[in-house]
Amino acid sequence: MKNLSKKISTKALPGFMELLPEDQIVFNRMKTVIRDSYESFGFIPMDTPLIERSEVLLAKAGGETEKQIYRFKKGDNDISLRFDLTVPLSRYVSEHLNDLTFPFKRYQIDKVYRGEKPQKGRYREFYQCDIDIIGREKLSFVNDAEILAVIYEVFSNLDLPPVLIRISNRKLITGLMNSLSLAKKSVEVMRIIDKAEKISLADFKKSLTSLKLDKKSIDLIVKFIGIKGSVAEVIKELSLLNIDNDIFNQGLAELKAVISNVKSFSLPAKAYTIDLAIARGLDYYTSTVYETNLKDYPQIGSICSGGRYDDLSDNYSSQKLPGVGISIGLTRLFSQLKELGLIKKTGVSPVSVLIIPFDEKFVPRAIEVSRELRVGGIKNEVYFESAKFKDKLSYANKLKINRVIIIGEDELAGNFLSLKDMDSGGQKKIKSKELIKSLTA
Amino acid sequence: MKNLSKKISTKALPGFMELLPEDQIVFNRMKTVIRDSYESFGFIPMDTPLIERSEVLLAKAGGETEKQIYRFKKGDNDISLRFDLTVPLSRYVSEHLNDLTFPFKRYQIDKVYRGEKPQKGRYREFYQCDIDIIGREKLSFVNDAEILAVIYEVFSNLDLPPVLIRISNRKLITGLMNSLSLAKKSVEVMRIIDKAEKISLADFKKSLTSLKLDKKSIDLIVKFIGIKGSVAEVIKELSLLNIDNDIFNQGLAELKAVISNVKSFSLPAKAYTIDLAIARGLDYYTSTVYETNLKDYPQIGSICSGGRYDDLSDNYSSQKLPGVGISIGLTRLFSQLKELGLIKKTGVSPVSVLIIPFDEKFVPRAIEVSRELRVGGIKNEVYFESAKFKDKLSYANKLKINRVIIIGEDELAGNFLSLKDMDSGGQKKIKSKELIKSLTA
Repeated sequence: MKNLSKKISTKALPGFMELLPEDQIVFNRMKTVIRDSYESFGFIPMDTPLIERSEVLLAKAGGETEKQIYRFKKGDNDISLRFDLTVPLSRYVSEHLNDLTFPFKRYQIDKVYRGEKPQKGRYREFYQCDIDIIGREKLSFVNDAEILAVIYEVFSNLDLPPVLIRISNRKLITGLMNSLSLAKKSVEVMRIIDKAEKISLADFKKSLTSLKLDKKSIDLIVKFIGIKGSVAEVIKELSLLNIDNDIFNQGLAELKAVISNVKSFSLPAKAYTIDLAIARGLDYYTSTVYETNLKDYPQIGSICSGGRYDDLSDNYSSQKLPGVGISIGLTRLFSQLKELGLIKKTGVSPVSVLIIPFDEKFVPRAIEVSRELRVGGIKNEVYFESAKFKDKLSYANKLKINRVIIIGEDELAGNFLSLKDMDSGGQKKIKSKELIKSLTA
Repeated sequence: MKNLSKKISTKALPGFMELLPEDQIVFNRMKTVIRDSYESFGFIPMDTPLIERSEVLLAKAGGETEKQIYRFKKGDNDISLRFDLTVPLSRYVSEHLNDLTFPFKRYQIDKVYRGEKPQKGRYREFYQCDIDIIGREKLSFVNDAEILAVIYEVFSNLDLPPVLIRISNRKLITGLMNSLSLAKKSVEVMRIIDKAEKISLADFKKSLTSLKLDKKSIDLIVKFIGIKGSVAEVIKELSLLNIDNDIFNQGLAELKAVISNVKSFSLPAKAYTIDLAIARGLDYYTSTVYETNLKDYPQIGSICSGGRYDDLSDNYSSQKLPGVGISIGLTRLFSQLKELGLIKKTGVSPVSVLIIPFDEKFVPRAIEVSRELRVGGIKNEVYFESAKFKDKLSYANKLKINRVIIIGEDELAGNFLSLKDMDSGGQKKIKSKELIKSLTA
């Protein structure tokens, strides 16, 4: 088969991230930190099939999704790869409604697929790390405040530079539009608002003018998204707008409820803010919305977004299931952090100790020591191959394992072990009995 | 959209396992135990794309794989879902040959896809938990012994009933066949040997006769696979067969090397045996082969199989890359254990403590206590919804959270907390400062 060697490309497909061990270990550690943070608030693990019926995935999807989805036939089945974790959640909750306890708090950390044009920072296969809290008929707004606390906790635990979590409530814009008798243009206006921070004020106004909004409306929208200050100040300014619309006032009441509860979670004041320019126009959210940025790296955009929706499963279930949730796009986040040099590499191996038998004769003793360490909770490995001693040490160097235990004639005869520190190069004799204590000290 | 509710099925596709939280938590715990066991021996995590070029996956595949594979086009790309983790490993090692350190020890715990007819115990989507040790040009047979120790460690850590790991060496059968001038029938004979333990001796002989083997050859094969006893006895009997064939003798020497090294790993003698009826006829193994059974449940077949191969990547690379590895089919194993009643359920939630504010007024204090517990490393959640007190307790019951902290007027005024044990029904007052100590005692 050797003649095939030139023909088959061994590269991963474009748009599919494939990491070398050193990066993979960091990536997996991030996944574990996110999982543990989610679990510490009581979110329950979920694992749904990667393949779903196309009619399930596409029931509510728009044109862009239909273009990007990986859809195919297997036998008579029209099936697709999931493009997010929310539609599978919706199907799962509808299917298992009577077996679940509500509020249902679940997390899912899994790959999703979108056949986008591969380009920098865009992946066709990527991890989403989602949490959602689903109520039955109703759901307290304390949950929206807790989600904010979860976001803060996750990124603190990930040991990333400071984040700023921005929240708003979509009913504010919807109500504002309704009060201006512009309900039909609400979605288009939200899309323009989403772009507001990337364009000049003049261009922003021009975009709104092109939707045939009058000057009074445009001025009010500009005034609205321009409201800044502490959360208390923003809420006060919103009240002072005196907008006589039920939806607007409901949005304001909801935002107040979230903000007043956030205080109980002891978040530092500088970790979150109300930002009325967040609309998430393309999403299905109906109330609270979230975006999260690294304060010092605004260029990478939102690293964690989400919001509250009125009904998770209106496609499949007649129960009303309000929910609130967020998603971290981990693959993209990882690649951005790597590019910014913010990834702290921790090693190329999960072990911190390599045991080197000087030659074959000392392999049994090396295995014995390895086992003792493993029983003592210390991950380790033995170098089994016959090689020159310096090549054995070089294996430890390449895997960045900085402690090496050497076993040879002297060690066996004297019933001790030699422990070499690969960083300092120093070497010392240790009694077998004291090895674990010495390694965990 | 409500009118769609009857039309779209919310069931997972047939052949795709979907678990409720209580089972999912057990399943994930098993995954974590396997991962930690693998890492404790120095295996490095790997995560390859689920989608590969079809030509990569099918380069060496036979007819059955071509039928079962999920293959489709996206744009101009002919792509497929991986059907195992070995072919992606082979591609990965060839692609990153110069960035990896050898011996390369990696694990991958991931889903694979095979469009088999859905039937009991057969899944179209299932987890494989693989380890492989890949050498460059050569690889010590101590590794084959270590793999045996890893298998034993994994199933001990999973707390399953006792396992029996059966090993053999495929060169013994190949050499035996060559010595009988039956090399061309070697693969067919291996397939029959694989079935030997499921059929009668008469049927076994009949199958061999149908391949037109003479009586002398059949008798020798029957004698060969009938050799039983301690590992020392089996090795002695194999020598006494006096088979004058280099491959046979090489297989015997390799088997001896593995067995002599296994002793150093301190495996109990009853945990492993040589079983010459293991051939793994459909696989690519060329030397050591493994199968693993639950001693008391032989009916569920092998739960962990593998072996050694001469060259991982002959399709893509001109380097010779000998390796040895095993795979656990976790989805199938889980479903079998569940059917046998061997799954120990641990709960429906990752948390062990629920905090119940008596009414809305006590939510801030509940959040404060929750945060203190989380900082102290205790996963917990707060019940935020307004509901009758007994419904709040019922939430704890349904999620099998057996400790509940209640916060109401008395607790707030007296600066204490009420801790209720849901199993016993008992309730006691605890000072806030002593809560963590009391919960971890």
